[in-house]
Amino acid sequence: MITALAGGVGAARFLQGLVNVISEKDITVIVNTGDDIELYGLHISPDPDIIMYTLAGIVDEEKGWGIRGDTFRCLDMLRRYGHETWFKLGDKDFATHIYRTHLLISGLPLSEVTKRLCQKLGLKVKILPMTDDKFETKVVTAEGTMHFQEYLVKRRAQDEVIDITFEGAEKAKPAPGVVDSILSADAVIICPSNPIVSIGPILSLKGVKSALEETEAKVAAISPIVGGSPVKGPADKLMRGLGLEVSVYAVAYLYQDFLDNFVIDNVDQMEKDRIERLGVHVVATDTLMKNLEDKIQLARVTLKSIGVR
Amino acid sequence: MITALAGGVGAARFLQGLVNVISEKDITVIVNTGDDIELYGLHISPDPDIIMYTLAGIVDEEKGWGIRGDTFRCLDMLRRYGHETWFKLGDKDFATHIYRTHLLISGLPLSEVTKRLCQKLGLKVKILPMTDDKFETKVVTAEGTMHFQEYLVKRRAQDEVIDITFEGAEKAKPAPGVVDSILSADAVIICPSNPIVSIGPILSLKGVKSALEETEAKVAAISPIVGGSPVKGPADKLMRGLGLEVSVYAVAYLYQDFLDNFVIDNVDQMEKDRIERLGVHVVATDTLMKNLEDKIQLARVTLKSIGVR
Repeated sequence: MITALAGGVGAARFLQGLVNVISEKDITVIVNTGDDIELYGLHISPDPDIIMYTLAGIVDEEKGWGIRGDTFRCLDMLRRYGHETWFKLGDKDFATHIYRTHLLISGLPLSEVTKRLCQKLGLKVKILPMTDDKFETKVVTAEGTMHFQEYLVKRRAQDEVIDITFEGAEKAKPAPGVVDSILSADAVIICPSNPIVSIGPILSLKGVKSALEETEAKVAAISPIVGGSPVKGPADKLMRGLGLEVSVYAVAYLYQDFLDNFVIDNVDQMEKDRIERLGVHVVATDTLMKNLEDKIQLARVTLKSIGVR
Repeated sequence: MITALAGGVGAARFLQGLVNVISEKDITVIVNTGDDIELYGLHISPDPDIIMYTLAGIVDEEKGWGIRGDTFRCLDMLRRYGHETWFKLGDKDFATHIYRTHLLISGLPLSEVTKRLCQKLGLKVKILPMTDDKFETKVVTAEGTMHFQEYLVKRRAQDEVIDITFEGAEKAKPAPGVVDSILSADAVIICPSNPIVSIGPILSLKGVKSALEETEAKVAAISPIVGGSPVKGPADKLMRGLGLEVSVYAVAYLYQDFLDNFVIDNVDQMEKDRIERLGVHVVATDTLMKNLEDKIQLARVTLKSIGVR
């Protein structure tokens, strides 16, 4: 049994490789919900949706999110009704949010709703939202404190980052199965996701970090930073804002308490010694995932580094 | 000031003519909400939407409902999630229901939400949902009691009708402005809508029928029955189920307490004497609305019959 911690696009691409190496039913994915946002009264879960759509084979591969070939008529009409429409939701995508919101309002927890969505999409992978509770990642900028999606999508990550806060983190409990799936796993993989706003929220939940430290499973991570910058997204701006250097070393530093193996890109080979002094074993390989073969290869190298297969 | 009582498609077509004769801002339309239904957690108001879309010039003219050129991707995806999708909601149409539901949940009454929708669609006509309260038209059939939309759309009006009930009618109050707009009108028009399930629910609300009897305005109706059958919809089955004959006379009979003038089709001329014995003045004309000229002509004849213009 493999348990993976995941954010959005980078994680989804890596998991596409993983399900080609390990049976889907042996994989549990704990997904960040700190980016969840309510728009037009609908509950949107960007990271879980990216993972679901990708593994269901319906994702818009080019964008990395949303459903392939989707249209935006509903959103166009909401604009006519005076709504802001900076968060691009497609017509098919809206069905997911309508379905999710309806079940949440009827009283089901997010984890149960996510399970049903996965079943309907034919997924065998177990996808767990990190928490059923309210949790919002906020970005503190010179322009004010804002929801992460507002920072990233509406304002295009242009504001200077002063701090990141996790609203609700003290009260939020990990969703059922989250801690257990880490403790009982044969191996744990931290996907190549933003360490601050994708993996960070999961680690902030009570019991998750200690489960990663206590589990007998080897813990491997794949660096989302390659050659001093993120493959995708604003990790560099966020890390710099928090006073961290933007490097594979800094990611290893953040994960050092529980990390056994760190898969970095060949271009970052020179960081190997510095990282290993943190007590983390390093494997260098080609980590850019341009096609399915790259993804499968990265999954194989990662699994091999922690003795699986 | 003209006040019209309206259902769906027939009323919408008539009102398209009316707004070409009378200034939009001088028209108040009281619309049936007995057909309103909650689907996927969204509040759908079929009759108000048909009126709004038609007067905003965006209706699918061929079907008479929905938005022209709309697609059904969201609904397709909801089907994949296991939902019944017999009620055809287009992608743009979904925006209306999302917007409405969001505002209703935030605490606004339906009448205020409808006002905002109309403003955004650029309408000058005042559209009033008949009530802000819960009200459901149910059809009692041999197969059981069901929501009117289930009877009409899902089961295609195939069940034998035993009775019609208005759930919530005792408690529901007319929306603000409904009774006043009848009492203060210069003329009242009952649109060519189903007398049982479109106009009937409006008449069932406390104070509406007495306002129609008390108002100093002349009250005119246009028959939705032509030559012994409805122009559109299941009025014949419903009327027969209630033990009524399917005729212009039966419609006049239902409205006799408040009706001054009844506009019927030329083909029903022979009913004139029988109707006039109810104390209702009859005008026969061509009532089929095949194009805008027909609609304008019908509006002119109706207004003239009650001395407007």
